Amino acid sequence: MREECGIIGVYGVESASELAHVGLHALQHRGQESAGIVASDGSEIQSVKGLGLLSEAIDASDLQDLPGHLAIGHTRYSTTGSKRVQNIQPLVIEYSEGIVAVGHNGNLSNAKELRNRYQSKGAIFQTSSDSELIVHLLADPDWEPGSDPLAEALRRVEGAYSLVMMDSDQLIAARDPHGFRPLSLGRLDDGYMVASETCAFDLLEADEVREIEPGEIVRINENGVTSSRIVEKSRCKPAMCIFEYIYFARPDSIMGGQSVHATRLKLGEKLAENHPVDADLVTSVPDSGNSAALGYARASGIPPDSGFIRNHYVGRTFITPAEEARASKVKIKLNVVKDVVEGQRVIVVDDSIVRGTTSRERIHTLREVGAEEVHLRISAPPIRCPCYFGIDFAHEDELIAANRSVEEIRDFLGVDTLGYQTLEGLMESVPGCGENYCRACFTGDYPVEVEQDMHKYALEAQRG
Amino acid sequence: MREECGIIGVYGVESASELAHVGLHALQHRGQESAGIVASDGSEIQSVKGLGLLSEAIDASDLQDLPGHLAIGHTRYSTTGSKRVQNIQPLVIEYSEGIVAVGHNGNLSNAKELRNRYQSKGAIFQTSSDSELIVHLLADPDWEPGSDPLAEALRRVEGAYSLVMMDSDQLIAARDPHGFRPLSLGRLDDGYMVASETCAFDLLEADEVREIEPGEIVRINENGVTSSRIVEKSRCKPAMCIFEYIYFARPDSIMGGQSVHATRLKLGEKLAENHPVDADLVTSVPDSGNSAALGYARASGIPPDSGFIRNHYVGRTFITPAEEARASKVKIKLNVVKDVVEGQRVIVVDDSIVRGTTSRERIHTLREVGAEEVHLRISAPPIRCPCYFGIDFAHEDELIAANRSVEEIRDFLGVDTLGYQTLEGLMESVPGCGENYCRACFTGDYPVEVEQDMHKYALEAQRG
Amino acid sequence: MREECGIIGVYGVESASELAHVGLHALQHRGQESAGIVASDGSEIQSVKGLGLLSEAIDASDLQDLPGHLAIGHTRYSTTGSKRVQNIQPLVIEYSEGIVAVGHNGNLSNAKELRNRYQSKGAIFQTSSDSELIVHLLADPDWEPGSDPLAEALRRVEGAYSLVMMDSDQLIAARDPHGFRPLSLGRLDDGYMVASETCAFDLLEADEVREIEPGEIVRINENGVTSSRIVEKSRCKPAMCIFEYIYFARPDSIMGGQSVHATRLKLGEKLAENHPVDADLVTSVPDSGNSAALGYARASGIPPDSGFIRNHYVGRTFITPAEEARASKVKIKLNVVKDVVEGQRVIVVDDSIVRGTTSRERIHTLREVGAEEVHLRISAPPIRCPCYFGIDFAHEDELIAANRSVEEIRDFLGVDTLGYQTLEGLMESVPGCGENYCRACFTGDYPVEVEQDMHKYALEAQRG
Amino acid sequence: MREECGIIGVYGVESASELAHVGLHALQHRGQESAGIVASDGSEIQSVKGLGLLSEAIDASDLQDLPGHLAIGHTRYSTTGSKRVQNIQPLVIEYSEGIVAVGHNGNLSNAKELRNRYQSKGAIFQTSSDSELIVHLLADPDWEPGSDPLAEALRRVEGAYSLVMMDSDQLIAARDPHGFRPLSLGRLDDGYMVASETCAFDLLEADEVREIEPGEIVRINENGVTSSRIVEKSRCKPAMCIFEYIYFARPDSIMGGQSVHATRLKLGEKLAENHPVDADLVTSVPDSGNSAALGYARASGIPPDSGFIRNHYVGRTFITPAEEARASKVKIKLNVVKDVVEGQRVIVVDDSIVRGTTSRERIHTLREVGAEEVHLRISAPPIRCPCYFGIDFAHEDELIAANRSVEEIRDFLGVDTLGYQTLEGLMESVPGCGENYCRACFTGDYPVEVEQDMHKYALEAQRG
Repeated sequence: MREECGIIGVYGVESASELAHVGLHALQHRGQESAGIVASDGSEIQSVKGLGLLSEAIDASDLQDLPGHLAIGHTRYSTTGSKRVQNIQPLVIEYSEGIVAVGHNGNLSNAKELRNRYQSKGAIFQTSSDSELIVHLLADPDWEPGSDPLAEALRRVEGAYSLVMMDSDQLIAARDPHGFRPLSLGRLDDGYMVASETCAFDLLEADEVREIEPGEIVRINENGVTSSRIVEKSRCKPAMCIFEYIYFARPDSIMGGQSVHATRLKLGEKLAENHPVDADLVTSVPDSGNSAALGYARASGIPPDSGFIRNHYVGRTFITPAEEARASKVKIKLNVVKDVVEGQRVIVVDDSIVRGTTSRERIHTLREVGAEEVHLRISAPPIRCPCYFGIDFAHEDELIAANRSVEEIRDFLGVDTLGYQTLEGLMESVPGCGENYCRACFTGDYPVEVEQDMHKYALEAQRG
Repeated sequence: MREECGIIGVYGVESASELAHVGLHALQHRGQESAGIVASDGSEIQSVKGLGLLSEAIDASDLQDLPGHLAIGHTRYSTTGSKRVQNIQPLVIEYSEGIVAVGHNGNLSNAKELRNRYQSKGAIFQTSSDSELIVHLLADPDWEPGSDPLAEALRRVEGAYSLVMMDSDQLIAARDPHGFRPLSLGRLDDGYMVASETCAFDLLEADEVREIEPGEIVRINENGVTSSRIVEKSRCKPAMCIFEYIYFARPDSIMGGQSVHATRLKLGEKLAENHPVDADLVTSVPDSGNSAALGYARASGIPPDSGFIRNHYVGRTFITPAEEARASKVKIKLNVVKDVVEGQRVIVVDDSIVRGTTSRERIHTLREVGAEEVHLRISAPPIRCPCYFGIDFAHEDELIAANRSVEEIRDFLGVDTLGYQTLEGLMESVPGCGENYCRACFTGDYPVEVEQDMHKYALEAQRG
Repeated sequence: MREECGIIGVYGVESASELAHVGLHALQHRGQESAGIVASDGSEIQSVKGLGLLSEAIDASDLQDLPGHLAIGHTRYSTTGSKRVQNIQPLVIEYSEGIVAVGHNGNLSNAKELRNRYQSKGAIFQTSSDSELIVHLLADPDWEPGSDPLAEALRRVEGAYSLVMMDSDQLIAARDPHGFRPLSLGRLDDGYMVASETCAFDLLEADEVREIEPGEIVRINENGVTSSRIVEKSRCKPAMCIFEYIYFARPDSIMGGQSVHATRLKLGEKLAENHPVDADLVTSVPDSGNSAALGYARASGIPPDSGFIRNHYVGRTFITPAEEARASKVKIKLNVVKDVVEGQRVIVVDDSIVRGTTSRERIHTLREVGAEEVHLRISAPPIRCPCYFGIDFAHEDELIAANRSVEEIRDFLGVDTLGYQTLEGLMESVPGCGENYCRACFTGDYPVEVEQDMHKYALEAQRG
Repeated sequence: MREECGIIGVYGVESASELAHVGLHALQHRGQESAGIVASDGSEIQSVKGLGLLSEAIDASDLQDLPGHLAIGHTRYSTTGSKRVQNIQPLVIEYSEGIVAVGHNGNLSNAKELRNRYQSKGAIFQTSSDSELIVHLLADPDWEPGSDPLAEALRRVEGAYSLVMMDSDQLIAARDPHGFRPLSLGRLDDGYMVASETCAFDLLEADEVREIEPGEIVRINENGVTSSRIVEKSRCKPAMCIFEYIYFARPDSIMGGQSVHATRLKLGEKLAENHPVDADLVTSVPDSGNSAALGYARASGIPPDSGFIRNHYVGRTFITPAEEARASKVKIKLNVVKDVVEGQRVIVVDDSIVRGTTSRERIHTLREVGAEEVHLRISAPPIRCPCYFGIDFAHEDELIAANRSVEEIRDFLGVDTLGYQTLEGLMESVPGCGENYCRACFTGDYPVEVEQDMHKYALEAQRG
């Protein structure tokens, strides 16, 4: 389960590229497969890009080649095994009005249709990135004179997009009318910044100003900050991805006015209310289950403990097939603390179950060292439908909850009891009105219509 | 604060080098600066070595060049900025009896004297590693005929050594008479393994047999496992490093018959007993403070919460000096969850304080976001003296507790109250008798006499 | 002085990507800054790309991910200091008709105008490569139904292009109506190949069939080889780059029906006829002057000798500024054989003079070791005008012959006599009619009209 | 066929490490598998080392960490496939007198005996390098008080050694009493340098002072240059490697008072005298056969031409086994110029034949393109015996001339005639008395006694 991107933009401070670089570290959890930074000194636009973690993709010494007061940055994951250097964002593209750079988090739901439409008009595509499509729309010569081409462009795309863009002297941030993906505005000394999550603000000692609104375009240049609308606010139907609260966002980020940690605590409390069980201890699957496990423990009064220990040094380890047979990467990453669980009735709190195979392996290890009972509690409801707005879940037929009952899943995982979050519990736990979130992965009710065969751009097949 | 090494040995299974490689992943926390594996098929000895994390130092595909049923491995840190490839362990050395490979965890306290003595006899040194010195002793032609040269050699060295060694058909493990550094024996299918910590056994589904005893040499070959003594057991004075429990070892490792996690829980409970304070929540400094914070919360009844979030993606990030001015690596690694601590009376549980500068920065961040009170509790007593047995603390004049009272430290850190573990509390928390541990970093009472100017080998100055 | 590219295409043999990879080695002299290979198995198109020499850019083991009977490859140089990964060719682009991959050698002379025209129609550009522009034209939806879009596209571009293209089941090769850059067709077992130079055929034991004609498009697919025309043959005015014979092409390549070596021999003979001088020996500046020096020696009867020795190990060496002050890269690459030239009257034969600074340094070294007389003979006429068709000479104001007389150049270089090839001598030496070659760098008579400000695409400024 | 090393030393100039670095470029042909530089500022000794070509092994920016007026450097090859980082020279070793660094070119013939002797005294070995052995001797505590330990040490070793050594304030150069390997002293501004070949002097604008004499130790320090003897001059029997003239040395190096090129010219002339044949042209196998081919042409009056073209871009290319089947690395490196040789009677001049397989492949290619007759002339006599003094020929049973007559070799190679240099021709061509050279590879008369099983150090088997 991987999300597509972290985005950042910095305006109005010296060495903006260095701030973007530091800030991207706080967004590394949103994408580890490539990174890029683009900067401008008001005339020339420069960029550095590379594959891998930020520390691998960008050499800090390269930043001296990126002077200027304006920069955007991006971290992304790429599809399995792909080393397509073309897809590294931000894209830097020349069109009739000059050069524009774009970094995108999300997934457009009418991309294929638009792609076909523009291809039939002669457009060519070098990446499978939606950023490229957005620039095609931006560059469309048919927009009414006097109109705002970016707004016009964004009115035509559907689905999820949080965008940072820049030309040589302006930073632009935009968020789709549903606000699927997060994006916030911060104040930084004499300047401004935008970022996917506020944890990037904390790192740079920026103050959060507010979230970019669904349907809003914010432009930051020498005249300050101006806001315009893609769609009238009254016509925006907020549908922020509720999974950001469950899994993606960092617990220390502020979303919806409170820390993601606080929301996850509530998720754990709800689980305790709805799926109580008599047990000796509550353990999380670290780190994503930590907050909810704490909430479960608080609400249930059952003591929290550390049944699992995560090995944080092995993010990108490669082992041989023979090695894999002996010790899977699941085991390298997570070990059980035997004397915590041996002979105990253990409640395990995890964030979600996608395919179920990893969970089963973890549960198996608990059993091996002698856990007497294992009760699994999941912060999310059963994931039954694919996401078309930026989360790369497994295909539908691989989602364990798509085709099995909770009892069947319980049996597959080998736990004594299994308690999923209810949809209501989830909606009551998130900030604001639960209706204002996209819950399609649980319900199948997609906020926008979805094309057949999304994700099937021909270029995706390529390597390089 | 860094420890020197993780060591592993595997005997009696096919592709022993692959098992050593997998197992080293579980010891990565004991050294991230270089790694090496040596293997034998009974006749030829092969090795691979490299700088960096295991995933950087050793390419899994190289392991096919290391066939055989016998392998040892090592992870180490190197001194600041050093890229001395010569120092990567295990060392592979030829002497009169053939080839021997050695991996060492610890620090000899009479190394300089022995080095001088052997140099005066014509010995030459290519590394600053104690492993090299040990082989010089092993190769000494003056041992009595019929004696065990390794035992004789080890009787001459003083200080800390947990060793894995091998020749072409035998695995050897040895531990100094004080048992400063951990080393355990495990059973693996038809074979055996040794490792610094039992978490490496878990990964390979080996069963722990027992700890290698202080003063013991264990040899594993086609005739099975045999044990001999460096020093009579009755003359061994156990002095295992108590800091392994406080900081170094992984919580899931079994040491002294129980998980390190369980010991740390007790450390937290003791802290709560000895330094109670009225507060709203207990937070750890993750991850090293997690278990003790849980213990504190349990004993005090004050709810645990997550005041800090660690960014696990930024282990080895380099940022520019200009970037450092804006956001130190401390901040990149650890952020505060604002709404957990804002307006709250916060108890922070950390493992230890070395220089105090990192702690101060973290406390400062808590204050910035509005913590009303900050009460710092430290699992360890004040560190007042350098370690000469394998821990690279700061120099004595940099140890904040060497020259300041607790009240002065409290003032320096900017906390409302500061509570260190008492030495008694520590001794009561660890498994077995508290007297059986080295506590010299707290007391200055070194279990063995220490040379002047330890660590000052001329070769250390080199780079390369 | 650098040319832009080497191109190759392979059709109809198993593992076409491997043949393309081997064959690119023979084209490495045409571009050392990046390399790429694209392959198809009839359905899926895969690619690998990288920066640097072929051995750095492409790992031979990657080729197993590029199965299929069809492949194209490209080597290129990039502008100084640029690491723009986007510009690595072949480009792989999706348009309305599917996916097409393009590798290009040459330089379009109306690129800016076309770029502007397409930008005004909404086109966007991600590279500064002419390949991208060509695909924009190919994808233009306004071509007449029933027309050949590629032919239509190529009719609109002016300047130099030798192209290899492919879709999933067809290899295409095309050459501009002037035939500026070389491109040949070869027969390979059951298949075919195309390459910039025939030395790539020799390596793969392919037989040369013929040169692709100026103005010709060759398509190779399961129906065999078909040829069509961009422009009627009668309307093609051949203007192949005469500099290929002087400098770029490998001596062992067949061009115009004979080896480039044979042509260079004649150039040397012509020089001897037109600029005789009494001297003791003839030496080349290796390796590009070797053939002409031999020709000069033959025609003059003055013995050839090796006055200079080239150090072939230092292609891409970086030395510090302090080092540069002491020993320039010119000296690292070329040393004088003292006892060959000391006290001698030396004729030095070089291929051409661009800025004159490197030549001067070499001559200076000859003088230092005691050459009595130095007579410089140049295979090419004076280079007075920039090339807009694929050679990256210095800017016009840096071309020493643009603004100085031969006597002034002689004085600047510090030689006793200086003899350039005459234009007539050059035209008489190359195969076929001398009028059929582009000689614009010597005469300023460009075969096609040239835009102002060529090479000034905005994206060129970028790094990344 | 590979030689072991190039060595360099610089004393008395600022940034000596940078000069050593530049100078090593001129010695790159003597070893491409690793490189190292050690420098001293009079107190501290620093080093950088790495695998690969100089440009890969040492980053020019590292040199700023190597300040001081004194430096030595080394390039070496390593045994096939070995990545043993321990063996990279110069070795830096601490012994009773301090730190010493050593770079070595050559091969000791009594290494095994000495190694055994020292091992029996307790010495340990970490490398298979003779440098390590030499330091063991240097560090021997049993040298008479008042004696020169280095001279004593070198009196005990037999075989080939040209050495550069340094401690913190002194540069030392030494050459074995036979002078197997070259070593020259040069004057450099206010300082001095030593190098394997004088081409390194040219690059740094140093003047050659003289060759280090066989049996001489030269020490350079603040008191200037002093010379001492390992063995009385009268007792030295010069036996410089005659193969340096045939193959190893760069043609522009001065050896024996004249350029190596001049000697090779004579070798070619001798060949023409002793093996005349009627033919149309003489071609070399570039580059090592160039000078001799020129000499052959001169003496025979048969015109020189370029039958082969070398691809200098493919030094370290890796191709897949499938690729190898189609185009061997021999073909990638060397192509035939078809119209030079087609229908011609061709004399091919090569430096030597080791196994004969490469030669056969090259001859085969000539035949394929239609050479009517092929007459092979070899600058060296038949190589019948292995070298124990620094050249890594094939094993004896792989030397084609060890077991076959010239006629059998001619038949194996598929040439019309085959003419080897006579031993007399060789001895008459080299500077000075032919008796003063080691010719053992041709005659089996080794200047010093050779141990059984040389090269068989146990550590050689290792990788890493």
